[in-house]
Amino acid sequence: MIVTTVTVYVKPENINDFIEASTENHEASIEEPGNVRFDVLQSMTDPTRFLLYEAYQCEEETAAHKKTEHYLKWRRKVDSWMAKAREGVSHRVICPRDRSKW
Amino acid sequence: MIVTTVTVYVKPENINDFIEASTENHEASIEEPGNVRFDVLQSMTDPTRFLLYEAYQCEEETAAHKKTEHYLKWRRKVDSWMAKAREGVSHRVICPRDRSKW
Repeated sequence: MIVTTVTVYVKPENINDFIEASTENHEASIEEPGNVRFDVLQSMTDPTRFLLYEAYQCEEETAAHKKTEHYLKWRRKVDSWMAKAREGVSHRVICPRDRSKW
Repeated sequence: MIVTTVTVYVKPENINDFIEASTENHEASIEEPGNVRFDVLQSMTDPTRFLLYEAYQCEEETAAHKKTEHYLKWRRKVDSWMAKAREGVSHRVICPRDRSKW
């Protein structure tokens, strides 16, 4: 399993647009066969800061996500709303080890 | 629901110690009544970088975690292993909205 976290800083005037576009991306992403989780979170102290928590079963499926129509649509939409470059970090899982807990 | 993410940079010589202590903390934390998730991840490009993904049902239960014996034990253990101060961020959940998806 691979978990990619993506931290995004959005321009204040685009917070609601970003929530709408990312909710749409979430709904389509969780239907991908390799997807395990696709959480969208917003910082409680800085509402312009978001975190995407994207868990996939393997590297191929993580890569396949970036070729989907819904991902490309999301990226086109949000590109001009970002206050700075987003930071993506790929992780291996330490816990939980049990796949059924995901 | 509240999700706290904690980014930790560990000294290279303490990577295995940190994994062991955090696995122990994970096992105890998921047994807390208010806990929803407690994932422990390691960056694939920087093995000294870890992410804890701690989901609780509400603020009270997030706060209660920090008073548990296992959390205090973990903090005492890992304190000298950290290469710099850890960064904690509290988040509200945008997606998934459905509690059963957590």
